[in-house]
Amino acid sequence: MEKFISNDFLLDNKFARELYHEFAEKLPLIDFHCHLDPKEIAENKKWENISQVWLGGDHYKWRLMRSNGVDEKFCTGEASDREKFQKFAEAMPYMLRNPMYHWCHLELARFFGIDDILLSGDTAEEVWNRANEVLQNGLSAKECMMRSNVEAVCTTDDPTSNLEYHAEIAKSDFSVKVCPTFRPDKAFAIESPNYLKYLETLEQATGIEIKSYYDLLAAIKQRHDFFHAHGCRVSDYGVDTVWFKNSFYYEVEDTFKKAINSSEHLAPEEVVAFKSAILLECASMDYEKGWVRQLHIGPIRNNNSKMFEKLGADTGFDSIGESNYVKSLSRHLNKLAETGALGKTIIYNIHPKDNEMIATMIGNYQDSLCAGKLQLGSAWWFLDNYDGMRRQLEAVSNLSLLGRFVGMLTDSRSFLSYARHEYFRRILCNMLGTEMEKGFLPRDMALVGKLVADVSYNNAKSYFEL
Amino acid sequence: MEKFISNDFLLDNKFARELYHEFAEKLPLIDFHCHLDPKEIAENKKWENISQVWLGGDHYKWRLMRSNGVDEKFCTGEASDREKFQKFAEAMPYMLRNPMYHWCHLELARFFGIDDILLSGDTAEEVWNRANEVLQNGLSAKECMMRSNVEAVCTTDDPTSNLEYHAEIAKSDFSVKVCPTFRPDKAFAIESPNYLKYLETLEQATGIEIKSYYDLLAAIKQRHDFFHAHGCRVSDYGVDTVWFKNSFYYEVEDTFKKAINSSEHLAPEEVVAFKSAILLECASMDYEKGWVRQLHIGPIRNNNSKMFEKLGADTGFDSIGESNYVKSLSRHLNKLAETGALGKTIIYNIHPKDNEMIATMIGNYQDSLCAGKLQLGSAWWFLDNYDGMRRQLEAVSNLSLLGRFVGMLTDSRSFLSYARHEYFRRILCNMLGTEMEKGFLPRDMALVGKLVADVSYNNAKSYFEL
Amino acid sequence: MEKFISNDFLLDNKFARELYHEFAEKLPLIDFHCHLDPKEIAENKKWENISQVWLGGDHYKWRLMRSNGVDEKFCTGEASDREKFQKFAEAMPYMLRNPMYHWCHLELARFFGIDDILLSGDTAEEVWNRANEVLQNGLSAKECMMRSNVEAVCTTDDPTSNLEYHAEIAKSDFSVKVCPTFRPDKAFAIESPNYLKYLETLEQATGIEIKSYYDLLAAIKQRHDFFHAHGCRVSDYGVDTVWFKNSFYYEVEDTFKKAINSSEHLAPEEVVAFKSAILLECASMDYEKGWVRQLHIGPIRNNNSKMFEKLGADTGFDSIGESNYVKSLSRHLNKLAETGALGKTIIYNIHPKDNEMIATMIGNYQDSLCAGKLQLGSAWWFLDNYDGMRRQLEAVSNLSLLGRFVGMLTDSRSFLSYARHEYFRRILCNMLGTEMEKGFLPRDMALVGKLVADVSYNNAKSYFEL
Repeated sequence: MEKFISNDFLLDNKFARELYHEFAEKLPLIDFHCHLDPKEIAENKKWENISQVWLGGDHYKWRLMRSNGVDEKFCTGEASDREKFQKFAEAMPYMLRNPMYHWCHLELARFFGIDDILLSGDTAEEVWNRANEVLQNGLSAKECMMRSNVEAVCTTDDPTSNLEYHAEIAKSDFSVKVCPTFRPDKAFAIESPNYLKYLETLEQATGIEIKSYYDLLAAIKQRHDFFHAHGCRVSDYGVDTVWFKNSFYYEVEDTFKKAINSSEHLAPEEVVAFKSAILLECASMDYEKGWVRQLHIGPIRNNNSKMFEKLGADTGFDSIGESNYVKSLSRHLNKLAETGALGKTIIYNIHPKDNEMIATMIGNYQDSLCAGKLQLGSAWWFLDNYDGMRRQLEAVSNLSLLGRFVGMLTDSRSFLSYARHEYFRRILCNMLGTEMEKGFLPRDMALVGKLVADVSYNNAKSYFEL
Repeated sequence: MEKFISNDFLLDNKFARELYHEFAEKLPLIDFHCHLDPKEIAENKKWENISQVWLGGDHYKWRLMRSNGVDEKFCTGEASDREKFQKFAEAMPYMLRNPMYHWCHLELARFFGIDDILLSGDTAEEVWNRANEVLQNGLSAKECMMRSNVEAVCTTDDPTSNLEYHAEIAKSDFSVKVCPTFRPDKAFAIESPNYLKYLETLEQATGIEIKSYYDLLAAIKQRHDFFHAHGCRVSDYGVDTVWFKNSFYYEVEDTFKKAINSSEHLAPEEVVAFKSAILLECASMDYEKGWVRQLHIGPIRNNNSKMFEKLGADTGFDSIGESNYVKSLSRHLNKLAETGALGKTIIYNIHPKDNEMIATMIGNYQDSLCAGKLQLGSAWWFLDNYDGMRRQLEAVSNLSLLGRFVGMLTDSRSFLSYARHEYFRRILCNMLGTEMEKGFLPRDMALVGKLVADVSYNNAKSYFEL
Repeated sequence: MEKFISNDFLLDNKFARELYHEFAEKLPLIDFHCHLDPKEIAENKKWENISQVWLGGDHYKWRLMRSNGVDEKFCTGEASDREKFQKFAEAMPYMLRNPMYHWCHLELARFFGIDDILLSGDTAEEVWNRANEVLQNGLSAKECMMRSNVEAVCTTDDPTSNLEYHAEIAKSDFSVKVCPTFRPDKAFAIESPNYLKYLETLEQATGIEIKSYYDLLAAIKQRHDFFHAHGCRVSDYGVDTVWFKNSFYYEVEDTFKKAINSSEHLAPEEVVAFKSAILLECASMDYEKGWVRQLHIGPIRNNNSKMFEKLGADTGFDSIGESNYVKSLSRHLNKLAETGALGKTIIYNIHPKDNEMIATMIGNYQDSLCAGKLQLGSAWWFLDNYDGMRRQLEAVSNLSLLGRFVGMLTDSRSFLSYARHEYFRRILCNMLGTEMEKGFLPRDMALVGKLVADVSYNNAKSYFEL
């Protein structure tokens, strides 16, 4: 059989091939949003076998295994690494058309040189042996990044982090820039039973005693400054919807004091008003420092109580949520625009119905701060697949400017996920190449090629200013 | 002109053709959800003319005729069969790109051997004569099923049915298995003016006097057992949304007693709490017996009051509804998972925006009971067309496991609708074949062909255990 | 480089080419919904340069320029026409895949004979000079319409308009029919601070003193008659959602009197009840006169307060809204059907999730008044692009009758926008031609060609009876 992951994988016409090979393939990559552990980078993590690097913390894979009827012991349980790998390999043929099928074979080809066989129960032993040999020969965290031509990554960090590993990496001779991202979700979670405990951690990190909303903002601001000093240029907010409720400062203050001083439950409106206010405050801080702000909107998490008790969060029990946040998004952005504090912003949606809505909403607040100041983020999480990307690219193209799109990121916990940038670039080039072939786009290689290079790399480079 | 319904209809590349002809075409079919009348099977129904079999009870066709400006007398009224057929034939050319155009020509080819002309006003007379000749030569209900290589069908039955025709068919030498499906919607409709009357029928069927919610559950359970004894292995619930409301048993009991004893209207919350509770109870019964549970979510019915008064339900005045049931679906499934009563479940949505949401939600509750325990159902009713199938298959592929999908069903009242299985298989093969051609899937016939056979037949075979 | 806007632009197979050139290209066009200024037609407006005709009032273009980081002075501000054109031209390469890229090059080719270069910063000077020469040689409003083979247009007019320019045009020898459209949105806006002022204008136009809801309806009716006498055959309603609330006449009367006599704010339910009632009243008037009624549903306007204060409405700060109007749409249409007052109606949605819902809802009320009595309107505003059209055509095809679709309109303020009819026809022909090539449609040119001609022209001709 011919190779599946060939040189021209996903490129089914000559325009697509030329676009990819001439304008995209060799560009470095800026992975501006990921969940890598900076400690693992600093310590240049190594793995004993492919299960550790593939199945260790990957809830995407666990979900697919469970969908294939695999018992939990082979996902997160006590089975051996080899047994887990076998179960995963056996599930592969059922994953045809799932992005996992493409990701895995791309990763096998790019990092392990395995591009002559397809993974299945039958080939598991061979893949296990060949991949482990590569790992034992020293494929490490840093090696993965360098081999992938990574120029910079932004990890995702709590404001209380001391960023010691970022500092360590910065002082080292590692050529890849590793920046933190400011993600203060826990400081927003006023309704959480863990909120007071989190405030204590924040007090320890800042030396500020947090007795009021005013104190909280001061503490956050201090960490914001600290992050900036450590090279942070990006923030990130994980929200279930976009909160907006007009309220007076003293009302928010009252709500906060109620939350920390009384055992009374907050009313849902109080929670929304608090989150609405603090989201605006943080946006202003981001704007003042010229950071890029990211909003990740809409998943519904931890749907399976039994498994949550057993395994905790981020173990594969989340899904696409739905809400109608048109008006609150409009008012949130408008409030910032009115006060002159609306900076670079990327909005990611988890429900595909919202692609077009967001792509038009951002158009209401674009201005001369920079080209593409507000962005519809690339297809995220459950939408990070061919169909999801196609639809996101349609929305950006038709309702905004594709040529100013900042492009792809991995959002990943794995050092092998850089293959997804290649995947995105191939899909982008194939979409454009196909339309050149059909005459829907001008057959002008320089024109379309520049767009490919911009979306693949140049736009992110100039937008993030890392 | 070349044949429209050729041997390679809808198969536009060599991979698609090989997939279909080698792996799908000859497989039997399991039609696990339909609305056939078991009496018509038992009695081996025959028809005098094509209008009777095509236009007799088909609200899809009536809707299209009305959309073409055809007067009601030619749809459900007093016009002659020949006149009705003429009006329908005249509407055909306006149906290009509607699935009806494909379905009709497939049915003409497969059951009547008419594949050399296209139906229109001009050809109506010829089609009428040739089709009627076939009918007069004995094309019967059973003949339709056998010629379509049907292995088993599941009809849709009220719990009060005595299943006499199912019993009769089972005792006969008819080679096709005809199983009932337990569909207790009327027992849920506590807000309906016909509810008390329905309870009486249920009392008669069971001999149980229904004075309480407890009694109602006992009666339902008795019929559930009865259905099981008659080979039922599938239940079905038609719901406008997924209800979920936590309540105590005594509250539901109070609501039920209020409904049967007083003239007071129930509050909407009471109705939801009742339906939420009884839906969970039935799910538990289904789980205990290892049945497959189906949820059909979301149509809005009988929108046209004038026509409802004139013609009653299921006459072509229903449409796609919209609601946000993410959280209630999550809590409904979670409650069952917590209590260990979540069995095989197929969820069908009528609003296409919900494809991806459901495809991710089911992923939260998959486990080792069986592969593909929870399923996103195939494109249903208004979505049962090329575009609807494509989008459903995208959601299943990207967010779940296409290789475990149990595939197609007719959902039909007609004995000619088996052509829709062929239609689905051709579309599936063309989708996969096209991607093999483009190199998006491995060009490995055994690998992709197995998936085709699994989705076409094997998965349903092992999932339903009929 | 070969020509981008070639004779076969967007037609990538021989069936598509034959369909377009044989069945669509030469047909006249009926632009049944636009925002042209009748004064500019009557006076046969001319322009000094291409910026005036392209950038003068086109908020689509301003939005894209702002998205490209262009300062407001080059959009709506004091920069020179040449400077504005330069900024727009420089943004063009970033618009690849945006419909603007296609529209602009089609307009340059069709009206200015410029089809040998692509617009960009580099070519701006040449395009500026060549286009301006054409303008100075007399390309005028009427010339644009005649050259585009326009048969009739419907402008959009407030009930208080005296329609003097429509009268003037009708008396002239201009061969294009210019009809008004009755758009009474301002008479509905009871919650607006400008409502009383509007009522005064309406009093002046009618001579009716408006002291009650009864008077208001009388005034509207008088203008409705006046419009009819001036050739109006179409109404249009711009609504944020479909309002429906049952209420007694005296309640609506009370609400109206409260609005005009007191400083008290109306409750949201009162506003909805009022709008619900008056929408039904106007629908009845439309029905009585056999007009076509249009509902444009769902944008969210003036999202950017700062820019609204600076520039007012319709300046590029609107976006796609979202609401769930399934039930209210059903009840609105049902009420009219019950009272026998449901006439020809076209429903346009701004949120793409609603395509399928509406396409099924209209099916509930079709009857023998005429074929295709209710229509899902063509892809509108933000959806007026290749992807939006494709999805609208899928919904119409699969859930209604494509063959009865009344097709395209410009919805435009510009005399150059007739190129969008060509754009639509090419896309339609390519969609159908591609499916003929694949064998998804019969390869019967007469059959499919008739559908093309019907959708391009014949259906609108017979539906609107202008």
